Amino acid sequence: CVLTGHWTNDLGSNMTIQTVNEKGDFSGSYNTSVSDTTNDIRVSPLQGSQHCPNQKSQPTFGFTVNWSFSDSVTVFTGQCFVDDEGNEILKTMWLLRSQVDNIKNDWKATR
Amino acid sequence: CVLTGHWTNDLGSNMTIQTVNEKGDFSGSYNTSVSDTTNDIRVSPLQGSQHCPNQKSQPTFGFTVNWSFSDSVTVFTGQCFVDDEGNEILKTMWLLRSQVDNIKNDWKATR
Amino acid sequence: CVLTGHWTNDLGSNMTIQTVNEKGDFSGSYNTSVSDTTNDIRVSPLQGSQHCPNQKSQPTFGFTVNWSFSDSVTVFTGQCFVDDEGNEILKTMWLLRSQVDNIKNDWKATR
Amino acid sequence: CVLTGHWTNDLGSNMTIQTVNEKGDFSGSYNTSVSDTTNDIRVSPLQGSQHCPNQKSQPTFGFTVNWSFSDSVTVFTGQCFVDDEGNEILKTMWLLRSQVDNIKNDWKATR
Repeated sequence: CVLTGHWTNDLGSNMTIQTVNEKGDFSGSYNTSVSDTTNDIRVSPLQGSQHCPNQKSQPTFGFTVNWSFSDSVTVFTGQCFVDDEGNEILKTMWLLRSQVDNIKNDWKATR
Repeated sequence: CVLTGHWTNDLGSNMTIQTVNEKGDFSGSYNTSVSDTTNDIRVSPLQGSQHCPNQKSQPTFGFTVNWSFSDSVTVFTGQCFVDDEGNEILKTMWLLRSQVDNIKNDWKATR
Repeated sequence: CVLTGHWTNDLGSNMTIQTVNEKGDFSGSYNTSVSDTTNDIRVSPLQGSQHCPNQKSQPTFGFTVNWSFSDSVTVFTGQCFVDDEGNEILKTMWLLRSQVDNIKNDWKATR
Repeated sequence: CVLTGHWTNDLGSNMTIQTVNEKGDFSGSYNTSVSDTTNDIRVSPLQGSQHCPNQKSQPTFGFTVNWSFSDSVTVFTGQCFVDDEGNEILKTMWLLRSQVDNIKNDWKATR
């Protein structure tokens, strides 16, 4: 399962992952289709890491998107699967961290 | 609030973040005190990104730890706060992704 | 959107919600298709609560499933939506809590 | 570990759990110290379930709080621990579900 390339999710967000190096580190860009701000959406950089880049198996991975149009950050983690017909499928979960003014509001800053 | 340096959390895990570059990207290492495997724990690399590295405010950040001793990956996201006495405090949440053999087990792979 | 009745999710789990009372409380049963134990799966009781049972809108709700065949508990929360064609759709997220022997293992007990 | 009684968490929220019945079901009330709305906070009903009410061990549990002052619902799940000195400690995690107008906004409705 190869992470490099273009991916689109259910909500219509697009992601491009560039070359994965020999340690598993990669960078790329994320163009989200949804936002919790009223700012104009802009393509944002991502960087992350996958397990065992030299294996052809179904690796786990994680990455951080540093939003260009807000004060938030989102982390994604998941695994790249290959189904019976050879299609590659990404399954991910995410946490969206918003900036809050005071540590007292920390409890509500993560979705 | 400056992310670079050494941090210890409630469970006794240690983290070192090296220089943050002008885009906010950083790398470092994570020495966890807890594990869900029976493998020997080893220091593991991390890489991530913070918002607005030139500001002295309370930035949000995210990073990925690619565990050296297991097939798992953990992503962390949070914010660096400064309390009334000037102490810097990291508040984070995380997702631990384990590798599963089959996409049918994807539902239980994230803690 | 009416919660009472039978529901099936993507994984093939089946849920029945019985009458919702005037305060919004309800009970029912959950027959999961997936499990993280090797025990035989058994139908398990659930109980929960929804907002504003007298409204015909798209209410939020939450419920607890007390698994009959393990020491775990799962909580679900979500919202009942009506799509453009009048179909009722449940969107939920969940946390599965496993029992651990010692508070030191609490960090890994929730998926 | 006995769930019935009064509990206070780190943020100063107060919870009272009334009698747990022989099946493990219970009800009670939750007086939160924090809110993501500007409405006046009001004491809200909770109901849930714990495992094995007749055992003296460290049971898992879950419950739903149906907020009286907003359209949201929160589910909590956790375990009741006894430390070396015999003190009872609750460790919980939660999901706060907000109401959204359209299923397209479902992705951001859960904290």
